[in-house]
Amino acid sequence: MLYSHQVRISIFGINKRKMLTKAKIKFLQSLQHKKFRQLYHRFIIDGDKTVRELINSDFIIETIYAEPWWLNKFNSLINVSTEVVEVGSEALQNISTLQSANGVVAVAEIPASGVVAAVEKKLCIALDNINDPGNLGTVIRIAEWFGIDTILCSETCVDAFNPKVVNAAKGSLFRTNIHYLNLQYYFSKNNSKVFGAVLDGENIFKAELSSSGIILIGSEAHGISNELYPFITHSISIPAYGKAESLNAGVATGIICAEFLKRYYNQV
Amino acid sequence: MLYSHQVRISIFGINKRKMLTKAKIKFLQSLQHKKFRQLYHRFIIDGDKTVRELINSDFIIETIYAEPWWLNKFNSLINVSTEVVEVGSEALQNISTLQSANGVVAVAEIPASGVVAAVEKKLCIALDNINDPGNLGTVIRIAEWFGIDTILCSETCVDAFNPKVVNAAKGSLFRTNIHYLNLQYYFSKNNSKVFGAVLDGENIFKAELSSSGIILIGSEAHGISNELYPFITHSISIPAYGKAESLNAGVATGIICAEFLKRYYNQV
Repeated sequence: MLYSHQVRISIFGINKRKMLTKAKIKFLQSLQHKKFRQLYHRFIIDGDKTVRELINSDFIIETIYAEPWWLNKFNSLINVSTEVVEVGSEALQNISTLQSANGVVAVAEIPASGVVAAVEKKLCIALDNINDPGNLGTVIRIAEWFGIDTILCSETCVDAFNPKVVNAAKGSLFRTNIHYLNLQYYFSKNNSKVFGAVLDGENIFKAELSSSGIILIGSEAHGISNELYPFITHSISIPAYGKAESLNAGVATGIICAEFLKRYYNQV
Repeated sequence: MLYSHQVRISIFGINKRKMLTKAKIKFLQSLQHKKFRQLYHRFIIDGDKTVRELINSDFIIETIYAEPWWLNKFNSLINVSTEVVEVGSEALQNISTLQSANGVVAVAEIPASGVVAAVEKKLCIALDNINDPGNLGTVIRIAEWFGIDTILCSETCVDAFNPKVVNAAKGSLFRTNIHYLNLQYYFSKNNSKVFGAVLDGENIFKAELSSSGIILIGSEAHGISNELYPFITHSISIPAYGKAESLNAGVATGIICAEFLKRYYNQV
């Protein structure tokens, strides 16, 4: 491993300037935009902790751009086929999507969106028109926390490979199946129970729930779209005890998932 | 009301340039920093919806900077003693804290921090070292949703009058008592039950809870501070069903508050 490390450093010692040409920086910065992520099938993962979760996942890493301290510490984790570029802290900040770069930035392949696995026998989450990257990232973390491995997103949801989502998801992104699809079409072809979170539904703490089905969450601003309403088989609400108008979509998802999981997986 | 509207417009027609001098803009921009908010006892409230919630609250509004369309629509809501400045959309964007200004920006007085009301007979939330403005704003909304009117913040928490907190709290800030204090000192002088959210506590869904006490939430990165641990009378955890390392602090607070409120205020 020491040997491969030395080879790598010497290779990239030679290539370093070339790697950080303006064109390369421009490519990295372009990945902050969905259009270019879709064009190149690549996305950026930023910061020590998230990159280490990436390395631990099944995602294919193309390049790791890291400061010397990070490479010294974690070089042994990196697959030998991964391209490694040693960069100074200023250069790293220049390509980082974080306010303060944290040692490393990686570029990985966006996995091909597979067929949605059958959800009839388990719980999954469907998100309609969630635009806020922080909210989507939070929901991905919640899903993994509660053992829900599939999230269905309407095509109008923010892109899960947006750097802000990647950052907010804290590694859970690499272990969750996220599908973008036309939810209306999907629901019309499936017979799953659909638990829609609405403002005037049944009190979730008293409602009859189920150990399988789809938890449907709408956007904060507009709720669930009119086209999806007919597919809701169970309308549920989190009772308000005060005067607040709404809960953050992430918080609402967390409370709903907790209630489902608690009832049906009480063994934990 | 039409008359006062006309007077106001004519006054500020004359003063408009003066009101938007560089010095005034600098003052408004300074309020994005805690130091200046504390110096002037003023904070910024940004955007149509939040400003209307402000107008509906007990907070004292100093100045409203608004575009003509907003004034035309909502002028009748404004107290006649409030200073009103009509601004163009470009000028508004210049003083706005939002990426896209939304019709209006207000400056209001930060209320004097009163004595903490007795919390022995109700639930309240204590936050230790919550740095993320979005998380604090989310917790303020959760508190109001569940009818919890008091939040105790450690002095190391982000300032509740930070524009990002104001924005995330969606008006709930104006109806919640938020106190900054030395939590260690406060707990040492109080006999309240303290329910600390920790990683290895009792499953909250099975634990004995209470209709009164303090729900203590630590920072995402470091949890509850060592100094506060001895004051925890009940350690509670949200059981993890998957592999995610942690939940967002706002989501955790939401799930915990839901469980408390559901058990003790089941009448709703």
